[in-house]
Amino acid sequence: MRPAFIQQLQAAAQANDSMLCVGLDPDISRLPTVAGQRWAGDAAKFYDFCAAIVDASADLAIAFKPQIAYFAAVGAEDQLEKLIAHIRQVAPQVPVILDAKRGDIGSTAAQYAREAYERFDADAVTLSPYMGFDSVEPYLPYAGKGTFLLCRTSNPGGDDLQNLDLASGEKLYERVARLAAQDWNRNGQMGLVVGATYPQEIARVRALAPTLPLLIPGVGAQGGDAD
Amino acid sequence: MRPAFIQQLQAAAQANDSMLCVGLDPDISRLPTVAGQRWAGDAAKFYDFCAAIVDASADLAIAFKPQIAYFAAVGAEDQLEKLIAHIRQVAPQVPVILDAKRGDIGSTAAQYAREAYERFDADAVTLSPYMGFDSVEPYLPYAGKGTFLLCRTSNPGGDDLQNLDLASGEKLYERVARLAAQDWNRNGQMGLVVGATYPQEIARVRALAPTLPLLIPGVGAQGGDAD
Repeated sequence: MRPAFIQQLQAAAQANDSMLCVGLDPDISRLPTVAGQRWAGDAAKFYDFCAAIVDASADLAIAFKPQIAYFAAVGAEDQLEKLIAHIRQVAPQVPVILDAKRGDIGSTAAQYAREAYERFDADAVTLSPYMGFDSVEPYLPYAGKGTFLLCRTSNPGGDDLQNLDLASGEKLYERVARLAAQDWNRNGQMGLVVGATYPQEIARVRALAPTLPLLIPGVGAQGGDAD
Repeated sequence: MRPAFIQQLQAAAQANDSMLCVGLDPDISRLPTVAGQRWAGDAAKFYDFCAAIVDASADLAIAFKPQIAYFAAVGAEDQLEKLIAHIRQVAPQVPVILDAKRGDIGSTAAQYAREAYERFDADAVTLSPYMGFDSVEPYLPYAGKGTFLLCRTSNPGGDDLQNLDLASGEKLYERVARLAAQDWNRNGQMGLVVGATYPQEIARVRALAPTLPLLIPGVGAQGGDAD
């Protein structure tokens, strides 16, 4: 049996002396040309493309994060299954976070939990908080499995809802951080997604949720940096 | 070419004298026994199970709404593709709403739009607003395709975020309704999801978004009724 997700993260961070989560987002229109063979347009190359990234970063990453949308768009779920099996082989100590941002009522959430944890064998999954606690609860009974709740995202529309001022004096994303830290993290395996482009907001989330791991996308193309 | 989604809805409502959207949520553990054969546990029966519901309700429904989670949980996307093709045959006038509640940054949203509209040939898809406008925008250029934005949901956790009071005096779900009606509905094919268990909130959303179609789950098991 694999260790619990948070312990996997900590062990991988120590072993690889790293805080790097490696995203695996194979855009079918942007695959490279390899040995003269054009992969763009060929979903059957998703595995080869991503497995090469995994092989090159297995001793640098503390997590791999495949984005399911790229696979689902073109019916390449088989490539994702094969990719996660490959990660288990070459980097068994590095956990897999399925980036899915699911969010639905309890009975449906139970199906999505099954998709992430059973079908794809992920160690953790990203979730949206908009539908509230019962949309998160069905993920928690899976022993040792993790969840990352969207809190403050760094995309252009991130402000539209997350940065709204509540009557309580909080921002909406601060409420989400507080809900996660004080109530929803009932299995001790929850983290938060906080964009890299707003460092003072990362600090605010850290203050509200001192012990939760933060998944921080937005380094690189979205304008953030690791400092 | 199919008419635009909103026009399909209106035509089906008139033809079938109905406001009924039929959900297709095949729970693998709850499939029936048919002619002595136990279907429970057999995802290969999803198509047969749902197609029978479609056949029985083709002249009563104004939309069919398959919930993708049930198919994705057990790797039965092929059954969903076959089911939607069947709806096209027996009820070509009835639109298909893919219940997916996706919500992710623009580049990923573009992949999910491709999943819903191209891979599964849906006429509309349900979306979560938490990540803001750029998580919705990539769906809009698909000519005649619809979106339903989560606004106020009737599940137990629906209050956790959606019912929060904003400093502006609105509730969060009211802001979402206003954003949809006044800004985000740029292709004229957007609707809102509003739970059936809070009639006064349906009235409030209707006032804020007078022309948007409302998808109202929660009749039946969740305690709402059609009145």
